[in-house]
Amino acid sequence: MSDHPSQALAAFAAQLRYEDIPPAVMARAEDLMLDWFGSALAGRNGRPVQCIESFARTMGAGPGGGAEVLISRRTTTPLFAAMVNAASSHYAEQDDVHNGSVFHPATVVFPAVLAVAQANGASGRELMTAAVAGYEVGIRVGEFLGRSHYRTFHTTGTAGTVAAAAAVGRLLGLTPERMLDAFGSAGTQAAGLWEFLRDAADSKQLHTAKAASDGLMAAYLAAEGFTGARRILEGKQGMAAGMSHDADPARLTNGLGTRWATAETSFKFHASCRHTHPAADALLQVIVAEDLRPEQIAAVTAHVHQGALDVLGPVVDPRTVHQAKFSMGTVLGLIAQFRSAGLNEFDEAYADPRIVALRDKVTMALDDEVDGAYPARWIGKVTVTTTDARVLRARVDEPKGDPGNTLSRRELEDKALRLARFSAAATDDEMRAVFERIWHIGRTPVVGHFLAPGETR
Amino acid sequence: MSDHPSQALAAFAAQLRYEDIPPAVMARAEDLMLDWFGSALAGRNGRPVQCIESFARTMGAGPGGGAEVLISRRTTTPLFAAMVNAASSHYAEQDDVHNGSVFHPATVVFPAVLAVAQANGASGRELMTAAVAGYEVGIRVGEFLGRSHYRTFHTTGTAGTVAAAAAVGRLLGLTPERMLDAFGSAGTQAAGLWEFLRDAADSKQLHTAKAASDGLMAAYLAAEGFTGARRILEGKQGMAAGMSHDADPARLTNGLGTRWATAETSFKFHASCRHTHPAADALLQVIVAEDLRPEQIAAVTAHVHQGALDVLGPVVDPRTVHQAKFSMGTVLGLIAQFRSAGLNEFDEAYADPRIVALRDKVTMALDDEVDGAYPARWIGKVTVTTTDARVLRARVDEPKGDPGNTLSRRELEDKALRLARFSAAATDDEMRAVFERIWHIGRTPVVGHFLAPGETR
Repeated sequence: MSDHPSQALAAFAAQLRYEDIPPAVMARAEDLMLDWFGSALAGRNGRPVQCIESFARTMGAGPGGGAEVLISRRTTTPLFAAMVNAASSHYAEQDDVHNGSVFHPATVVFPAVLAVAQANGASGRELMTAAVAGYEVGIRVGEFLGRSHYRTFHTTGTAGTVAAAAAVGRLLGLTPERMLDAFGSAGTQAAGLWEFLRDAADSKQLHTAKAASDGLMAAYLAAEGFTGARRILEGKQGMAAGMSHDADPARLTNGLGTRWATAETSFKFHASCRHTHPAADALLQVIVAEDLRPEQIAAVTAHVHQGALDVLGPVVDPRTVHQAKFSMGTVLGLIAQFRSAGLNEFDEAYADPRIVALRDKVTMALDDEVDGAYPARWIGKVTVTTTDARVLRARVDEPKGDPGNTLSRRELEDKALRLARFSAAATDDEMRAVFERIWHIGRTPVVGHFLAPGETR
Repeated sequence: MSDHPSQALAAFAAQLRYEDIPPAVMARAEDLMLDWFGSALAGRNGRPVQCIESFARTMGAGPGGGAEVLISRRTTTPLFAAMVNAASSHYAEQDDVHNGSVFHPATVVFPAVLAVAQANGASGRELMTAAVAGYEVGIRVGEFLGRSHYRTFHTTGTAGTVAAAAAVGRLLGLTPERMLDAFGSAGTQAAGLWEFLRDAADSKQLHTAKAASDGLMAAYLAAEGFTGARRILEGKQGMAAGMSHDADPARLTNGLGTRWATAETSFKFHASCRHTHPAADALLQVIVAEDLRPEQIAAVTAHVHQGALDVLGPVVDPRTVHQAKFSMGTVLGLIAQFRSAGLNEFDEAYADPRIVALRDKVTMALDDEVDGAYPARWIGKVTVTTTDARVLRARVDEPKGDPGNTLSRRELEDKALRLARFSAAATDDEMRAVFERIWHIGRTPVVGHFLAPGETR
């Protein structure tokens, strides 16, 4: 059969085996799953998450269905478990991100595969192989769609639908041809617009909820013989034709089987939009080095890439905690005030007059070097002017959480504990039991529930 | 409040009352509902429809939920009833179409509102008011998105999501502000690409299934307080920004409350893509006038608009009944052979060597007059060359089924009976009982089930 890019990518996802994945990549995938788990719990009390859980209860089955809604510890069918867990895990802005694709893989991939694995009694290795298939596909689709796509579309919603389809398709054992069908049905459902940012609306969690559940639907339909477009990504009336001006089909198959994009994925350290992290790290560096107090700061310029201006620019006066996570001024203000921009700092202080005052001292400026390196590298550069007229500059080449500056398993556990405590979704003891299970997921014969009681059907 | 176009349209939908709708428009809405009902039954045995019904059974509730899946006579929650009925009613290519927007309203609006009306015990007037709200919104969104959108996107999938949200939102009694939220959540889910046509894939029914169920979800979420972008249609990172080059915001509010787009909607007479109908009518005219036998035809040129070339052009060798409905050659071949291109002719003869031979005598040519009038008017023009070298021309200014050349209630009933017989989804007696209920829907205190037994919860 001819091997066009969509087809090659689908065949890769369908044929990926646990043994093909280098141990270091699989270990990183376990790290990513644990990191995701904390984020899934962190969204428990978010109003948009609760709305989606309420909808899932109204429209879904009663108890039974085999898949676990982590925030409520109930079971339902995989469609609704994927939907709610995906909404929840993108709420706290603490889930992982792949820099080159500007795509958040965990929040769409793990909810979909965990739900299906639980419902179908899959093994840990099947679960993790499927997750890696989802990461590898979604990241390449995001890279393929390019920067022009990201200017208007939330790549995690669009590429994420294909990622979830690939992951679930692998778990369902789709043939390469059926996987291509799943891609077709996923790509033609792919959606998610940035317009909501301007109003601090709740769409971000809807995007991940729908990417996970729509991708899952695409894979289930393909298993039933429902066909899809064979060139949904690169075809003349496909995703790139409709939603990108700079798509590069070569990105779809870049290093398949040799380059492991999964392992390029970054953990989030600050509880804010990833576009704020490089500047936050740079500011933290200068504040620590000079031992600056907040009142010594007269002005901060964050030197950023165009994508940061596109996503963060509309947020000038954040009215919610969530919107504040997209405010460069708020993030840098929290760093200046607390030397930390975690969930608690956002929750308690985003509207504090001290933070608002600091926020209004921050401006963003497009920087040619930063923009040129993006999205492959996310360089952080700031210029701080002090009240005594000193001009201080700082830069970081790899923000905290990137592969070259990553979090240890201990740091990941600490982060997950903090996230679970923040929402009171699980006790420390429960979390430690979860950690043990995830660190040994490769030897788990049947992936069961993590927090929900046994099947109540 | 400022009255930007999205907001004005949302306010109109939220505030529309039964008494505001002229009786002639409401009578036409009843015609449209009856016409839709036949289409919903006609898709019963379609493989893609069965796949979606199977998925709905796997992921949905057991019995109960209050909403009726027409093809299987089971009840489920409104989400899944809307999903399956919308898939089914777009299968036979017999559902209605609005010319100016190139949008099929019934297949996304009626499944969504009927499901919710049944589940919530709404009255017939509430149902019909909501349906008209959905038509008026969806048609204007389709017109707004324009021709550039339709070149890559299936408007019935994209505008259809907003239409379903408007209709369900009206039925749920959303305030204008909440309706705007529903628009935001609908528009950011809007999707549907034409790429599937090239492969005769099953996506068309997925698009309508998802438009109806995603729009429904948007409205339910809005009722719970889930917020959406306030300018999802016309905003800088909204639908038009991402998916259109010629969007005109003035179309969104064109004649709200005075121009009734619902009544502009056309019924389909031939069982094929609407883009084939003008030429089919013109060919039928010349064949009847000249009493041409098929073997007298040497060549046929269909003079068409660009949209017909975009949608029908890729279909050169149809491999399925469904794909044949997008083949101008097949449609004109059936007209030449049988003087009819109905469901039975397609089913029995689309691959008949006589039809294939006629198909290969048909070419399409872009026509400036036809293209200039489109999409407001769908002019049909053909040139037929006979084997004895006569050149015959015919034109129709308004194809059969358009408002100025519409179907009577008797013709609509006959069409619905044929559709139900085709799929054996209901007996003639059952259909006649359905007709009585729809013709009196305005006096129905509670919209119940049409074919399913009473609630089995």
